Amino acid sequence: MQEAVLAKNDAMAAANRAFFENGEIAAFNFVSAPGAGKTALLVALIGALADRVPVRVIEGDQETARDAERIRSTGVPAYQINTGTGCHLDAEMLEAAIHELVPPRRSLLFIENVGNLVCPALFDLGERAKIVVMSVTEGEDKPLKYPHMFRAARALILTKIDLLPHLEFDVEACVANARRINPQLRVFPVSARTGAGVAPLADLLGSQLRVQG
Amino acid sequence: MQEAVLAKNDAMAAANRAFFENGEIAAFNFVSAPGAGKTALLVALIGALADRVPVRVIEGDQETARDAERIRSTGVPAYQINTGTGCHLDAEMLEAAIHELVPPRRSLLFIENVGNLVCPALFDLGERAKIVVMSVTEGEDKPLKYPHMFRAARALILTKIDLLPHLEFDVEACVANARRINPQLRVFPVSARTGAGVAPLADLLGSQLRVQG
Repeated sequence: MQEAVLAKNDAMAAANRAFFENGEIAAFNFVSAPGAGKTALLVALIGALADRVPVRVIEGDQETARDAERIRSTGVPAYQINTGTGCHLDAEMLEAAIHELVPPRRSLLFIENVGNLVCPALFDLGERAKIVVMSVTEGEDKPLKYPHMFRAARALILTKIDLLPHLEFDVEACVANARRINPQLRVFPVSARTGAGVAPLADLLGSQLRVQG
Repeated sequence: MQEAVLAKNDAMAAANRAFFENGEIAAFNFVSAPGAGKTALLVALIGALADRVPVRVIEGDQETARDAERIRSTGVPAYQINTGTGCHLDAEMLEAAIHELVPPRRSLLFIENVGNLVCPALFDLGERAKIVVMSVTEGEDKPLKYPHMFRAARALILTKIDLLPHLEFDVEACVANARRINPQLRVFPVSARTGAGVAPLADLLGSQLRVQG
């Protein structure tokens, strides 16, 4: 059963990927535990990017439209998917959202998945890359305990680094754990609250409209 | 398909529940997002309880035995379940773990589920109650965005309250959001690091060996 679900998803994801490539749209799938700060991060990235390139956002949550509203308050169009009891976005949901949102040619599309460090690892949406977001409040061992997600991701964004002085969190140990799982993982420490680390990450994401990843 | 899976699970959960009732074992299923601090909370509760009542722990993680080792370092027996790509514990896994761990008559059994605020809401393990654990670093809106879990739980433990001075987290707003979803939810603010709030919670859990919930 799971194999059939994933095979159907992969076919739809391939169609989404072709749509993005034709439109030169760079789509990134942000995945994390609930409360890691994905929406705050996206708002910060939009602040650094939206004057330079068109940005669109697709939000996934079990319920509420709060995250899409937070994004729209920046002036960037956003579409909210509600999954009900569902634990992840799939390629079919994304395809329907694309039809509503209509991201323009040569735009950045940020997809914020349902907060879940497990199930979204299995579902390709057709994105250029999964980006795993992890707050420094979560503990250094998360890459080892949730390895599928850290293996599926191209980059790790460590959020809430402004809280480091108040935590016993060892950044180097966390990065070492993540690279044990995925030696190629690129790591970006940021604070959406202070803005630390946001500019270089925004530059890198913006540059994806020129360079294929 | 999902209905068949849940029906099979419910039958097994009923058997687990009968086993617990026969043994006067009070089993609690701790559910949360990854990194909410469930294991640190259990270590703190064990420190307050283990001299008074027998405590046993079943740990659920995708990979590693780190959490069971942390529990065993307190002197309390623990059994680790690894779910691989699986996103939750189910009643069959719990039944197998009970056979290995053999919790004694009139004991407290703490079950730490896989860190996931979505899927474990759907799976009855035969526990007396689900307890949702949420860190104050996760944001006040989580009960609204993950309502199934907050509806399924009997109590909410708000962890890491020692970090409140460094956050813009409104405890009253969070509790109001949680009670919109589940008006009967009992709320316990704690800090495993400072010990704040641990003693009354431990007293309440210990008292469950006398009073049926």
